[in-house]
Amino acid sequence: MTAFGFELLATDGAARLGRIDTAHGPVDTPAFMPVGTAATVKAMTPDAVAATGAQMVLGNTYHLMLRPGAERVAAQGGLHRFMGWPGPILTDSGGFQVMSLAKLRTIAEEGVTFQSHIDGARHVLTPERSMAIQRDLDSDITMAFDECTPFPATWEQAERSMRLSMRWAGRSRDAFVRRPGYGLFGINQGGLYPDLRAQSAAALTEIGFDGYAVGGLAVGEGQEAMFGVLDVTVPLLPADRPRYLMGVGRPSDIIGAVMRGIDMFDCVMPTRSGRTAQAFTRRGTVNLRNARHQDDPRPLDEACGCPACRSHSRAYLHHLIRCKEILGAVLLTWHNLHYYQDVMRVLRAAIAAGTLAETANALLAEAERGDIAPLS
Amino acid sequence: MTAFGFELLATDGAARLGRIDTAHGPVDTPAFMPVGTAATVKAMTPDAVAATGAQMVLGNTYHLMLRPGAERVAAQGGLHRFMGWPGPILTDSGGFQVMSLAKLRTIAEEGVTFQSHIDGARHVLTPERSMAIQRDLDSDITMAFDECTPFPATWEQAERSMRLSMRWAGRSRDAFVRRPGYGLFGINQGGLYPDLRAQSAAALTEIGFDGYAVGGLAVGEGQEAMFGVLDVTVPLLPADRPRYLMGVGRPSDIIGAVMRGIDMFDCVMPTRSGRTAQAFTRRGTVNLRNARHQDDPRPLDEACGCPACRSHSRAYLHHLIRCKEILGAVLLTWHNLHYYQDVMRVLRAAIAAGTLAETANALLAEAERGDIAPLS
Repeated sequence: MTAFGFELLATDGAARLGRIDTAHGPVDTPAFMPVGTAATVKAMTPDAVAATGAQMVLGNTYHLMLRPGAERVAAQGGLHRFMGWPGPILTDSGGFQVMSLAKLRTIAEEGVTFQSHIDGARHVLTPERSMAIQRDLDSDITMAFDECTPFPATWEQAERSMRLSMRWAGRSRDAFVRRPGYGLFGINQGGLYPDLRAQSAAALTEIGFDGYAVGGLAVGEGQEAMFGVLDVTVPLLPADRPRYLMGVGRPSDIIGAVMRGIDMFDCVMPTRSGRTAQAFTRRGTVNLRNARHQDDPRPLDEACGCPACRSHSRAYLHHLIRCKEILGAVLLTWHNLHYYQDVMRVLRAAIAAGTLAETANALLAEAERGDIAPLS
Repeated sequence: MTAFGFELLATDGAARLGRIDTAHGPVDTPAFMPVGTAATVKAMTPDAVAATGAQMVLGNTYHLMLRPGAERVAAQGGLHRFMGWPGPILTDSGGFQVMSLAKLRTIAEEGVTFQSHIDGARHVLTPERSMAIQRDLDSDITMAFDECTPFPATWEQAERSMRLSMRWAGRSRDAFVRRPGYGLFGINQGGLYPDLRAQSAAALTEIGFDGYAVGGLAVGEGQEAMFGVLDVTVPLLPADRPRYLMGVGRPSDIIGAVMRGIDMFDCVMPTRSGRTAQAFTRRGTVNLRNARHQDDPRPLDEACGCPACRSHSRAYLHHLIRCKEILGAVLLTWHNLHYYQDVMRVLRAAIAAGTLAETANALLAEAERGDIAPLS
């Protein structure tokens, strides 16, 4: 079995072209991971996910510990086998979703006590329990258990929260069982405060991880503030390990973060938007529920090779959405994931060619032009 | 362009192996047509439908005239192009669904006036209008406009209804525009009354159609009564034309009807059941919502080659259904349609080999054994 590793293949400014090797295969970076919350990338077969070019998917510890349960997944041979995804899988630690979804949460030094949002059952999540669950799931990349610092937060709140996450990061490292091909990532916190981000980076580096995530962003601070945090934080993360910006984002967020040295991304946006008629295209976002599409025989995105764009018209996609047909959600999700992977392919090629700045400007300018004109 | 035609290739008792040629390609019979109500076989991409082995799909005139509208489909190049299904399409006449779905229906000699179940808008459907809509849709097989006789019905009610349908059949024939590769089917009515079925068969044969459907069945009369109607009706239909049993049915219904000389079937059962956790298998129906499946690593149907059975366990399918995941509906629909096509493949091979009776008995006996035993 291959060792877990990260190979840096090329750089262009702060941006990096690389490859992560995991127990379940390689991942070319910069990479976007579709979110497979409950052991399924919503509305997609595993074959369809792979056909978009995605190499790694994300699973949610919080959802999977509640349904079907981590022990049950382990008894079925792990998450790869359970969901029919043979490639690499990263799981989050459960910390973020406990705070956003669970009821009656109590945070203590030991961990978090909460009630399931599904049936109200009481659960405890600690760094040790999170590591055990993620091992049951057989995640190629395990995330350290952390508290996602609320936004907005005062310096004192952010400092207290970051220090707790750093203690939990140490306990996660201690509890994580090392196996060849499997990695553990630490999560940088500190809100919007550069000094806290720096202290967090130093603490994580001191503990030592196989990769470093930037957490607590994309929570309402805006793109400029997010990029500001990356500008001061990314240079402090070890250059020989992959860097992962959690829960981000829109294509323009990803482009800007790649230019600042981020290697990995995940976000529900392409999948969730696919179920609510929103399409991401080379010309920005398009709302297919709008009646302007109802007689439009043109594809959603002329330059896209996904099944929705190759085989169907805007008129048809609009019709499916209007009739609440499952195929509408399937095709738009497929398109959005395919488009996100296209963006990553373009960014990787540009880094290899040393033309990232021009490529990024061209992508952003085209998106800002907005959708093609309606048919007269 | 090929002429519309039916070639009889072999018989085994009353059962027939054949091939229908249409403007959009051939259909091997006995054939099962998945139902694509609103220009989509629910939860399936067109590629997935084709991968099950289906060669022809059914579209619903009633749904399509309301949304997106027949003229809109025509402007998009017809239903094949609109829904991305290049193969043959049969459309029903709208008569059945006006009676089951629309509001404030008024039946007169001229046709049916009704209000849309979607927005209450007033519409009129006549034989002439039904032919025009089906031509707009570009259906390979157009169905004559008829009234589906209610069940139960007295002889007098069934007789009056059948006579109206026969007059409408004549008007449908007059209004249908003949084109090479396109066919018009008449629909036999008469309730459970053999004399009325015989009069209807004579009336339709006198008018002359490219195929003959048996209508008004699978409406609550039970399998025995349905087979009884087929026993007296099918021998009266022209042997050199395809015969279509509308809206049928369960696998055992199809097997029995094939043995009585029926060539074509359609039913929402495999697709609708796929969205409600019901699977059709070689061992009968299986309810995947049942907790007995939650730790079962075995495939739904060991002998099935569909993606749900090749790549996933019962435990995973149960999990998807429990979490109301779209992929659950997708995989079960795929399986059910694949299984239905497997049944048709087996029946066609048995007719070719002259072993239909044994094959049918074996299929029915295996289904009656029920599902495999739960894991202890």
